[in-house]
Amino acid sequence: MNVYERSVALHEQVRGKIGTLLKVRVESQEDLSLAYSPGVAEPCRIIAKDPAAANRLTLKGNTVAIVSDGSAVLGLGNIGPLAAIPVMEGKAALFKRFADIDAFPICLDTQIVDEIVETVRRIAPVFGGINLEDISAPRCFEVEERLQDLGIPVFHDDQHGTAIVVLAALINAAKLTGRDFSSLRVVMNGAGAAGVAIAKLLRGVGYEGATPVRDIVMCDTKGAIHSARIDLNASKIEILAYTNIEDESGDLLDVLAGADVFIGVSSGGLLSAGDIRTMAPNPIILAMANPEPEIMPEEAYKGGAAVVGTGRSDFPNQVNNVLAFPGIFKGALAAGAKQITPKMKLAAAYALAACVETPTNRHIIPHALDAGIAGIVAGAVHKAAQA
Amino acid sequence: MNVYERSVALHEQVRGKIGTLLKVRVESQEDLSLAYSPGVAEPCRIIAKDPAAANRLTLKGNTVAIVSDGSAVLGLGNIGPLAAIPVMEGKAALFKRFADIDAFPICLDTQIVDEIVETVRRIAPVFGGINLEDISAPRCFEVEERLQDLGIPVFHDDQHGTAIVVLAALINAAKLTGRDFSSLRVVMNGAGAAGVAIAKLLRGVGYEGATPVRDIVMCDTKGAIHSARIDLNASKIEILAYTNIEDESGDLLDVLAGADVFIGVSSGGLLSAGDIRTMAPNPIILAMANPEPEIMPEEAYKGGAAVVGTGRSDFPNQVNNVLAFPGIFKGALAAGAKQITPKMKLAAAYALAACVETPTNRHIIPHALDAGIAGIVAGAVHKAAQA
Repeated sequence: MNVYERSVALHEQVRGKIGTLLKVRVESQEDLSLAYSPGVAEPCRIIAKDPAAANRLTLKGNTVAIVSDGSAVLGLGNIGPLAAIPVMEGKAALFKRFADIDAFPICLDTQIVDEIVETVRRIAPVFGGINLEDISAPRCFEVEERLQDLGIPVFHDDQHGTAIVVLAALINAAKLTGRDFSSLRVVMNGAGAAGVAIAKLLRGVGYEGATPVRDIVMCDTKGAIHSARIDLNASKIEILAYTNIEDESGDLLDVLAGADVFIGVSSGGLLSAGDIRTMAPNPIILAMANPEPEIMPEEAYKGGAAVVGTGRSDFPNQVNNVLAFPGIFKGALAAGAKQITPKMKLAAAYALAACVETPTNRHIIPHALDAGIAGIVAGAVHKAAQA
Repeated sequence: MNVYERSVALHEQVRGKIGTLLKVRVESQEDLSLAYSPGVAEPCRIIAKDPAAANRLTLKGNTVAIVSDGSAVLGLGNIGPLAAIPVMEGKAALFKRFADIDAFPICLDTQIVDEIVETVRRIAPVFGGINLEDISAPRCFEVEERLQDLGIPVFHDDQHGTAIVVLAALINAAKLTGRDFSSLRVVMNGAGAAGVAIAKLLRGVGYEGATPVRDIVMCDTKGAIHSARIDLNASKIEILAYTNIEDESGDLLDVLAGADVFIGVSSGGLLSAGDIRTMAPNPIILAMANPEPEIMPEEAYKGGAAVVGTGRSDFPNQVNNVLAFPGIFKGALAAGAKQITPKMKLAAAYALAACVETPTNRHIIPHALDAGIAGIVAGAVHKAAQA
C-alpha cells in the first residue's frame, strides 16, 4: 500500500484521530456530585461573578479551536468543510502531541467572511485561542484582522506559522552561507496567505525592531509583482509598498537572476538546475510546494545551491509549521495573552533558529519531531507576551 | 469541605473535566505522513467525492456538540455562556463515561434564536449529533424544531431526556401501585421545557402508537393552566389542547386533590404531607426540583405516598437524564439516524422501564451509575431508528 492507502486504512481504523478524554472519575455518587450536579453549580457561580475564573476552572485555558471553512485545504483547494475534517483533526493531533493542548476542529459550513467572523465570535466562550486554518487568501487576512479584538489569541497558521519557520530557516541559512541577513535579496514565488505573511515578516512590516532583508521580489503566476501591473488585487497592491524596491518586471526567471534566496510557496517543478545557476553563488533555496517542491533538492544542488529546504518530511530541512504553532499557542495560553503580537512571533522565530547551534546544509531548522522544541518556543513566546 | 467546595477544588485541579485524546501515534516520520501530510489528502479527497464517508474516516460519526447559550443552567438561571461551561463539560464527561461518545461543549455568545440556529448550522459539519442544553423555554422549542432538517440528530435533552426518564419511572410506578397506566390522572407543576415535553410524551402528543395517560393538569406559578387564563404564552396555549380535559381552574393544591400522580419540575418545598393526603390513595410522587424537591421523600411518605422519586442522587429513584441521553445518542449515531424520532424516544423509555424487572418503592428506575443501561437504551433506539 502507498502512503495514501495506508492513511485511509489508518483513518478507517481509528475513526477520528482525536477523541475526548475523561479527566475526572465518574464511578461513584460522590464523583457525580462533584463533576456534575449539585457540586458543579459552584464553579458556575464563581465564573458568573468573575469571568476570568473560567481559565482555571474549565477546559478553556488549554483549549484551541482549529477553525476552517475548507476553502484552501493543503494542496487540495476548496474542498469544503466536511472534506477538510481529516486535516483539522490531524492538526488537533499535532497540538496534543507537541504541546499537550486540547484542540478541537471546527469546520464551518460557510465561506462568507462576515459569517466566519460572526460564528467564531459566537463560539469563542469555550476556547482559549483560535487557530485559523486553510482559509483562502485574501479572505483569510480580513477574517484574522477582524477577530483581533476577540480577547483571546486568533492566529492564522498558514500565514504566520509558515512565516516564522521560514524566518528561522533563513537566519540559519544566512549564517551557514556567511551572508549578512539584512543584505539578502529574496525572490519569492506565490503571493497567497503564506507568501504575503513571509514577505511581511522578512521585510519587518508591522514588526517593529526586526531586522529586515534588503529586498524581496514577489511573483505570482503572472511573474513579478510590480507597479505597472493592472491585474493586482488589494493584497498584492499592498505588497508593492514593501517589496520590489527596484520595481523590476518580468517573469520568475527574469527576477531570479542574481538573487541570494528563492522561497517557493507555489507549485511543483517550476525550476531547473540551470535556473539556480543564474542566482548569486551558493544560493539558499526554500522550495515548499507540496507534495512536489518547486525544485527537487537534488536538482537544486546540481545547480549550485548551498542549502535546500522543502515542505517534505522525506528531505532534510523540512519547513514544517508544527515547529511553531504548538509552542506559540502554548506560550500565549500560559501568558494569558489576548493576541499573538508581532513581538511574540519574532520571539518564536528567533527561539526556533537558536535551537540549531551550528547550521549545516542538512540542518538549518530543527526536525519536526524533535522533542522539546515546542517547550522552547513556548518559553520565548510567554516571555515576549509579558514584556 | 462541603460538596460545593470539593467540586471547586476538583475543577481547579483538572482545569477541564474533559480534554482531547490522541488516537494515533505521532512519533515517527511515517506516523506524521499518515496522520497528516501527505497521506491525509486521500481521506479528504474521498470525503469531497462522497460526504457520507466522513462518518467512517473522521471523528464525526462519534462526536456530539453540547450546545448551550447559558440561559437556563441547572437551577442557576441565565448565567451566560462562560459560566455554563462547567455544566456542559460535565455533560461531556457523562457522554464519555456512559456511552464512549466524544462530546464537546459549545457555549454560544448569543441568546437570539435566529443566531443560535444559524450558528449550529454553520458548525455542524464536524458533529454527528447536537445535544441542546440549558436553553430557556420557550426559545428552546423553536431552536430545536428549526434544526430538525439539519441531517443529524438534534435533541434538547432538558425536554426529551427528562420526559423519557419520567415516562419510564411512571410506567413502573403504575405497575408497582397496581394502576392502569392509561387511567392515571397526573398533576404537574412547572410548564418550562421539561414540563411541556413530559406532558406531550405522557399524553402521546406527537407520539403515534403511545399509550397516553388519561389526563394531565399542568400548573405554573399562577396555578392550573386553563382556558379562561389570559396570561398564557404561545406554548402554554398549545398545552391547553392536550391537558386539563375538564378545564379545571384553581391553584396547584386545588387540582392536586384526587390525583394519582404529582410531577414536579418547578421549585423546592411547595408541598406538605397534608397536601399529599388530598391525592388519591397511594399516590405516585416525582418531585424533581433541584436541589430541594417540591416535597422531601420523608414528608411525602408521611402523607401516604406509595413511591417517591426526586432529582437528587442521595435519595432512591433519581430521575436522572443520564439514564437516557448517552444511550439515545449512541443508538442514533450507530443507526446513522438523521433525527431522533418519537418512535426512538418511546423505545428508549420502554427499554429503560424494562431494565427494572420488579419495581419496588426504592427502585422504579435504574440507578444513574448502573452499568449497561446506556447499551440497552442504545440497542432499543438503534432498532427503532431502523424500523
